[in-house]
Amino acid sequence: MSALEHTHVGERIFQLIEQLYPICRSITGHGVRQTLALLTEHIPLKIHEVATGTPVFDWVVPKEWNIRDAYIKNAAGERVVDFQRHNLHVLNYSVPVHARMTLAELKPHLHALPDHPDWIPYRTSYYSETWGFCLTQHQLDNLSEGEYEVRIDATLAPGHLTYGEYFLPGASDEEVLFYTHVCHPSLCNDNLSGIAVTALLAQWLGTQPRRYSYRFVFAPGTIGSITWLSQNEARLQNIKAGLIVALVGDSGGFTLKKSRQGCTLIERVAQQALRDGGENYVVVDFAPYGYDERQFCSPGINLPVARLTRTPNGEYPEYHTSADNLQFVKREQLAASFQLCAAIVDILEKDRRYVNTQPKCEPQLGKRGLYRKTGGQKDIGAREYALLWVLNLSDGEHSLLDIAQRAGLPFKVVSAAADDLIACGLLHEIH
Amino acid sequence: MSALEHTHVGERIFQLIEQLYPICRSITGHGVRQTLALLTEHIPLKIHEVATGTPVFDWVVPKEWNIRDAYIKNAAGERVVDFQRHNLHVLNYSVPVHARMTLAELKPHLHALPDHPDWIPYRTSYYSETWGFCLTQHQLDNLSEGEYEVRIDATLAPGHLTYGEYFLPGASDEEVLFYTHVCHPSLCNDNLSGIAVTALLAQWLGTQPRRYSYRFVFAPGTIGSITWLSQNEARLQNIKAGLIVALVGDSGGFTLKKSRQGCTLIERVAQQALRDGGENYVVVDFAPYGYDERQFCSPGINLPVARLTRTPNGEYPEYHTSADNLQFVKREQLAASFQLCAAIVDILEKDRRYVNTQPKCEPQLGKRGLYRKTGGQKDIGAREYALLWVLNLSDGEHSLLDIAQRAGLPFKVVSAAADDLIACGLLHEIH
Amino acid sequence: MSALEHTHVGERIFQLIEQLYPICRSITGHGVRQTLALLTEHIPLKIHEVATGTPVFDWVVPKEWNIRDAYIKNAAGERVVDFQRHNLHVLNYSVPVHARMTLAELKPHLHALPDHPDWIPYRTSYYSETWGFCLTQHQLDNLSEGEYEVRIDATLAPGHLTYGEYFLPGASDEEVLFYTHVCHPSLCNDNLSGIAVTALLAQWLGTQPRRYSYRFVFAPGTIGSITWLSQNEARLQNIKAGLIVALVGDSGGFTLKKSRQGCTLIERVAQQALRDGGENYVVVDFAPYGYDERQFCSPGINLPVARLTRTPNGEYPEYHTSADNLQFVKREQLAASFQLCAAIVDILEKDRRYVNTQPKCEPQLGKRGLYRKTGGQKDIGAREYALLWVLNLSDGEHSLLDIAQRAGLPFKVVSAAADDLIACGLLHEIH
Repeated sequence: MSALEHTHVGERIFQLIEQLYPICRSITGHGVRQTLALLTEHIPLKIHEVATGTPVFDWVVPKEWNIRDAYIKNAAGERVVDFQRHNLHVLNYSVPVHARMTLAELKPHLHALPDHPDWIPYRTSYYSETWGFCLTQHQLDNLSEGEYEVRIDATLAPGHLTYGEYFLPGASDEEVLFYTHVCHPSLCNDNLSGIAVTALLAQWLGTQPRRYSYRFVFAPGTIGSITWLSQNEARLQNIKAGLIVALVGDSGGFTLKKSRQGCTLIERVAQQALRDGGENYVVVDFAPYGYDERQFCSPGINLPVARLTRTPNGEYPEYHTSADNLQFVKREQLAASFQLCAAIVDILEKDRRYVNTQPKCEPQLGKRGLYRKTGGQKDIGAREYALLWVLNLSDGEHSLLDIAQRAGLPFKVVSAAADDLIACGLLHEIH
Repeated sequence: MSALEHTHVGERIFQLIEQLYPICRSITGHGVRQTLALLTEHIPLKIHEVATGTPVFDWVVPKEWNIRDAYIKNAAGERVVDFQRHNLHVLNYSVPVHARMTLAELKPHLHALPDHPDWIPYRTSYYSETWGFCLTQHQLDNLSEGEYEVRIDATLAPGHLTYGEYFLPGASDEEVLFYTHVCHPSLCNDNLSGIAVTALLAQWLGTQPRRYSYRFVFAPGTIGSITWLSQNEARLQNIKAGLIVALVGDSGGFTLKKSRQGCTLIERVAQQALRDGGENYVVVDFAPYGYDERQFCSPGINLPVARLTRTPNGEYPEYHTSADNLQFVKREQLAASFQLCAAIVDILEKDRRYVNTQPKCEPQLGKRGLYRKTGGQKDIGAREYALLWVLNLSDGEHSLLDIAQRAGLPFKVVSAAADDLIACGLLHEIH
Repeated sequence: MSALEHTHVGERIFQLIEQLYPICRSITGHGVRQTLALLTEHIPLKIHEVATGTPVFDWVVPKEWNIRDAYIKNAAGERVVDFQRHNLHVLNYSVPVHARMTLAELKPHLHALPDHPDWIPYRTSYYSETWGFCLTQHQLDNLSEGEYEVRIDATLAPGHLTYGEYFLPGASDEEVLFYTHVCHPSLCNDNLSGIAVTALLAQWLGTQPRRYSYRFVFAPGTIGSITWLSQNEARLQNIKAGLIVALVGDSGGFTLKKSRQGCTLIERVAQQALRDGGENYVVVDFAPYGYDERQFCSPGINLPVARLTRTPNGEYPEYHTSADNLQFVKREQLAASFQLCAAIVDILEKDRRYVNTQPKCEPQLGKRGLYRKTGGQKDIGAREYALLWVLNLSDGEHSLLDIAQRAGLPFKVVSAAADDLIACGLLHEIH
């Protein structure tokens, strides 16, 4: 697993984020297309376009939104709020507007953050046709009375919803799903971090032998996952485990959010990887608010899909503001997020059940070169301890993951012990 | 639920306690009859009389005890201990006596509390025919040597055991039982508080629509519940939930004692009501000591009956003494106890199972006016959160109570969310 | 149970340890035979001899090792390391050697403890034919350059593995097994403590009426239990509960190690006895490292065998050193270990299921003389409380042990309450 040892993985993820940062994404439109196009330089994504008006469960695919320019000009003709300087300045999905109005008329369309007067908020209006601008509280305070020219040069019209998918076949038809949302504009942690980590994970996994098949979906939040689930309903039964990856670049520890089912393979594997990884983490129960796990874990879908973030949505001040920028995400955290995902894949791939071929009493490890020669010392090492645990619990009931959890040992140590025991005929795999 | 908003509920309960306080009750006799008669001014109690000698499981209904007067007179003819001043002065259920005796002969019949020299203890001798007086330690210390005239003008003779019952039919034959003991003489918390709260609860519930039927039983402790259970054995199968209400007027927080079964509807409902209510409370496991839950939770009866008290029996110094008086119980606590019982009824009545009619992904709440229009904020409110929880868990497995518990939301918030979802067709009830 | 009251039990156990201390035991050989012979002065052990080369599961019975003398002499002919002074000086199971060599040649064969320079370590080489000496770090430091005469006058040759067994038949064929290892040379806690406590327990139990049959096995560690299990495989199904007893003389609290099954009768009984006993204790989960529970709890054997020690192997500095001597074990701890084992036996013997013959409401205890006469007091005593618990839970589902656990009462109190209830016909035993 050479990618794991690659000390520059954080740098590579960060560079991809830098490339993606300027693009103005939304739930539909060219921003998503440009984003997916950039990803195809790393992985051969298949791009799907779903037409506006297509019914997707209780929803329909909305109109496509595209924007060229937007500004508020003061009486002197100066752009006092300018989309060209930051795409968060436009209320995402605003309908086109070109009008002159007083400050009093304009104000209901303006969004700012009094508590963080230097930051531009990120606001959307996907399902209510309106327009608006987001600006810093300082900008808002500096708007003098008088007439303003307001322009949003956007189109909201029939078109498509776009998503990208990358399928890596494995020995089994059973699939592991990684899903990340691609609808946010210039916000780094939410969710260029998830996009970039997932893309490089997919790239690395393409070079590895695979027991499971893997599917990587890059799609807009909410309507994207609803659309994908609606269009892929027949396939869902193949999904053995899934992970929503998002917000994985900030300085916080990891947060694993369990699936609605609560104790499936993915939670167990991810918790083992988190424990083995050594970074701080918390595990939280499922709740029907957050990211696309809301859809994957709705009662009629109910897939074993958990969510991996660092600090969850809404729990850091920079969330959904212009302060979620290139300084906010860290190469080291991005690399560790990548490595955690790779460790999850590694456990999924290597977790098997074995049967001890000499189950009555301990087999004599010494004659097989697996045990120290002089006895009487206080302790045995982790390796010998792992050998004993694997032998003791390999009764057909316990997988290597079960054993690692029960023994409190890193999965790698348990897996290596199993390899030694297989080599001398003391274990055989069962299915 | 207008009674709940009634700010004078505490005052009304207290007034009823004041009326009941002077009566000398016991497990049989006129004191219980007078008590039940006073309650009929509020609710149309049906009075039952069970004859002495009637077999009730392993027991028989005892003789009826009535008392007119009792005293200890000193050599000067002064009443130094006088039943007319406090009915606790007589050992409850004393046989009649009229005799002259020395202090030494008298002393084995006297009960006092050295640690609380101003308080009269409450003592009984239901099943051992004897007589005695209870007095303050100061009174006892002041008794000089010399001869005393002792008189207990009581009768202990064949008669009846009396209890009252109020049945409120509901849409279903399934019953909710409230039981409170009526055998204690002038003690306010134990148990005029339970009697008065239960009576006013019954009065209020008589004015409400009811899904369940409700039965309120006012009967003596131990022998009363044994008699009631014995006489109503065929009906017990209808009891879906029950609550012993007692000792609910002191300043302590609530104590919910679980039924023997331990995790039935009543415990779950009561815990939700307690959590929602915001007052301090503890939940304790069943133990076969306490009040009438001992009988309801005996192994051959084993009903889903829990117990609600504030500070439990024996855990406050005033317990079973003359200090459990009108100053010891508080209007505010009595009102809160009433409101908790009403909240329990409210949850019982409204707890239903629903099925989400759009279970695949989230339904689009926005188009139904149930979701905020501008997106991107950090938090959603409790109402939207409750909508999402109800939709997510309405899979036929979870009732509203289950959902409130899992979501950590007040039952009222969850129930209101369900009403909104029913109104727009997103939920339908299942049975 | 007169032995339990015997205040000299600690002294008797200690005297047996003193007798056994000088013997140089190993996994085979005369040391074990002498040890078992000494035990036959207390219990009629049956001695088993299993020939070298006998296959026992994945192992074979090894050669028999016997030693007469061993030393290292310096150039002056002085014994600088001398087996006659302490049998730990020889690497246990050393092959014979008689040679002259330089200090440099000798050193790879020497074992010392730099952190405890006054102690001789205990080391073994059962399955790798080599020789060696163990000595204090001070001795090692004082060895000057020069030639040494090294002699180990031992034999390692076909012979037998020896173990002892004592079977006490009871009313039932179901067996309780006590197992202790007898292979360690002059080490007191590990495991003369286990040997002596188990021997006197067996002696005492021989004088008691018995519901279960009891089997006591005194055998070498690891290869001894493997051999015993291999030779007794057909009988194992009779073992209802088992306990490995070892390291029970040090000053630490008790450690109960659960069986691999984790929640069988022996753990539940032992935990009750530990709680009732009042000494500090911890309960730890099974792990496949430690003493002979490794074999009894291997996946193909998987017996309900727990382990009782005080401070476990390796967790005290004196472990496997000459400091585990007669000063290290304490009469008081040895007596308490004996009494704990006797309490475990007592609970096993007395744990029964009863049915309350008056299950509907409480039976009237007063008329049977089992309840206080005057009512109204704050508390009831533990005896009345135990009567109520036994009546309440004697529904055919709960044994006396279940009741003691649920009630939080000592087993003896619950058992005595059951006796009172049986005497007046309120309980009958079910099977």
